[in-house]
Amino acid sequence: MGLVTEQQVVASDRKIVMLVADGVGGLPKKPGGPTELEAAKTPNMDHLAAEGALGLLDPIGPGITPGSGPAHLALFGYDPIKHNVGRGLLSALGLDFELQENDVCARGNFCSLDDKGNITDRRAGRVPTKISSKLCELLEKEIQLGDIEIFVKPEKDHRFLLVLRGDHLSDQLEDTDPQKTGVPPLKCRPLREEAARTARIVDDFSAQARRYLAAQDQAQGVLLRGFARKLPLPTMADRFGLRAAALADYPMYRGLSKLVGMEVISKDAELLDRIATVKKRREDFDFFYVHFKKTDAAGEDGDFEKKVKFIEELDSAIPELMKTRPDVLVVTADHSTPATMASHSWHPVPLLLWGHNVRVDVQTSFGESAASLGGLGRFPMTHLLPLALAHADKLIKYGA
Amino acid sequence: MGLVTEQQVVASDRKIVMLVADGVGGLPKKPGGPTELEAAKTPNMDHLAAEGALGLLDPIGPGITPGSGPAHLALFGYDPIKHNVGRGLLSALGLDFELQENDVCARGNFCSLDDKGNITDRRAGRVPTKISSKLCELLEKEIQLGDIEIFVKPEKDHRFLLVLRGDHLSDQLEDTDPQKTGVPPLKCRPLREEAARTARIVDDFSAQARRYLAAQDQAQGVLLRGFARKLPLPTMADRFGLRAAALADYPMYRGLSKLVGMEVISKDAELLDRIATVKKRREDFDFFYVHFKKTDAAGEDGDFEKKVKFIEELDSAIPELMKTRPDVLVVTADHSTPATMASHSWHPVPLLLWGHNVRVDVQTSFGESAASLGGLGRFPMTHLLPLALAHADKLIKYGA
Repeated sequence: MGLVTEQQVVASDRKIVMLVADGVGGLPKKPGGPTELEAAKTPNMDHLAAEGALGLLDPIGPGITPGSGPAHLALFGYDPIKHNVGRGLLSALGLDFELQENDVCARGNFCSLDDKGNITDRRAGRVPTKISSKLCELLEKEIQLGDIEIFVKPEKDHRFLLVLRGDHLSDQLEDTDPQKTGVPPLKCRPLREEAARTARIVDDFSAQARRYLAAQDQAQGVLLRGFARKLPLPTMADRFGLRAAALADYPMYRGLSKLVGMEVISKDAELLDRIATVKKRREDFDFFYVHFKKTDAAGEDGDFEKKVKFIEELDSAIPELMKTRPDVLVVTADHSTPATMASHSWHPVPLLLWGHNVRVDVQTSFGESAASLGGLGRFPMTHLLPLALAHADKLIKYGA
Repeated sequence: MGLVTEQQVVASDRKIVMLVADGVGGLPKKPGGPTELEAAKTPNMDHLAAEGALGLLDPIGPGITPGSGPAHLALFGYDPIKHNVGRGLLSALGLDFELQENDVCARGNFCSLDDKGNITDRRAGRVPTKISSKLCELLEKEIQLGDIEIFVKPEKDHRFLLVLRGDHLSDQLEDTDPQKTGVPPLKCRPLREEAARTARIVDDFSAQARRYLAAQDQAQGVLLRGFARKLPLPTMADRFGLRAAALADYPMYRGLSKLVGMEVISKDAELLDRIATVKKRREDFDFFYVHFKKTDAAGEDGDFEKKVKFIEELDSAIPELMKTRPDVLVVTADHSTPATMASHSWHPVPLLLWGHNVRVDVQTSFGESAASLGGLGRFPMTHLLPLALAHADKLIKYGA
């Protein structure tokens, strides 16, 4: 976190709202064309851009494509390299699963396999939660791993949480998810000698899962990644003196918020409902993290037009958001998810900063090109929260 | 190198070509005028700029004027502060000189001295290799340093390699090259107590060299810099999974390339010949480093117009370069060499990135002013290689 220490933080009445349009950064369909954000009609955000300042953020570093976990940690002012939070832990937190000290957890995907055992779809056609819940129950009930207790808990769609409980388990394991199709799931490889036994247990789990899923239409196998254990992080209250609230419907984002001490005050699926909650709870918190997932999902699906549409939906909610009277409003993304790539990418994310004491720049619309010429310049994402704190009168002078 | 670890690197078929226009960054002759790059007619690079994105790179850090060695290390993704490769070592590598473990080497210049022993030309009128080779032979044969064995090997023009072989030698020595004229060569100063004896040996070498050169027309003395010993560096294959090829005619650049594990596949003097080799060997490598020295030489000579002409020569070779079908093309410099300064400088260097998944910016010509407003922003040169790897699909996601 660099320069901001607890000693520099002071209280103020000013409210910070951080609207995270997940994966909103993009690419043009053709060189010279507009990105998703530039193609979208966003009169409300453009208005804020004209009154505020733009910039570009590097979530992790140039060329590094971030996962959602590290990128959100950076948004919240935590060094994502120092605090390498495993995906499994994020899943456990998102489900309110009470992890014990020695538990090892992982994020699972149900996947589709062909006759040869090669992956045909890493998400099993995004199998609906209703079905995947039943598959989780089946696996949790049937799979036997000797003295190891197992928990298989459904997340949204194809995602689930695996928890192994027993003595001498290690989380020093590589993913079994090869991150591509046309190949079989990977054998679980231990990163250290002490993890060899746990790796065998994981492989046993995967093999039994495949056996019990064989008869299923939607999914024939499991992919596991982000093996992790419980990890204590200092809270945003401790570090920045912030009473911080999270408004997000996806478990992973709620889990991460709780990890840094935020209170989850809304799981509403609709952005307008989340905004209504910000309005209602305005006086109870200093910082509101409002998550908007649809932009990332459309990007991941490679659907440029749908992403444009969701950006326009987001923009149409801005007038309601402004009624919450933020003193400092940040609109940005955790990472880019260009529809042309149908995946997260390393491209820096556009940043819009509006509010109290913002030094206005010459940009008048919110988009990547404008942001690359914005008054805030380009900087590491971990510096964003200190910047927001400063604009909210929550940081004292460094030195005399 | 920070963020990119071996674990994040994956193979891909995409080819990266890095065209290094040595010293191409410059300054205008008059405030408000064009730099060398801006004065040159570069329709081909302008076209690439329009299709790609621009930025500025800091080779070492703001205000720091880099030598060619550290700057090239930064281009290749190595931290030039952590890996301080002495110039002498680079010379030895460039000449394929088999350094032994305890050898100490230095890069030498033949120089011109006046009657008072003051330097009148640090390069002895760029004495031709034909003559300097004979001078090297003379010194290697005649100079006696007790139990220390010496090697004096010619490089191009006024440059040579000095190697001292014997027990208890140290490379902790300051240069004897004062980097200016009108003063005598410096006495060799030890940086540590243990190097005092080696410093005396070096001074003895310089004094004897002056004696044997006294009768020579072209050179009357020697200047030594970059004392160094053998240094093991991890290769680009180890670090980035790259089969890397170097195409350069000057020994120093070849030496540095070999130091990081590149294969030197062309020593051709002409750029077009180097490009033809890239074309021919395209499938054998993932990364091609193509060096173009003339821009730096003209800058060092303080010849603005000649530098402009060489930039135009470079530009005219771009259509041939594009026939090698790079997936990711980087055009940049190792450092700036403004003709108005007739030396390397600290000014950031312009960067042009073209190819797969590049987020196009609004710039349409390649020059320093355009680059300062480019979509890639300004960033440390060590981040360039990770960025190129990302665009070539050679890096996986960080975290989940």
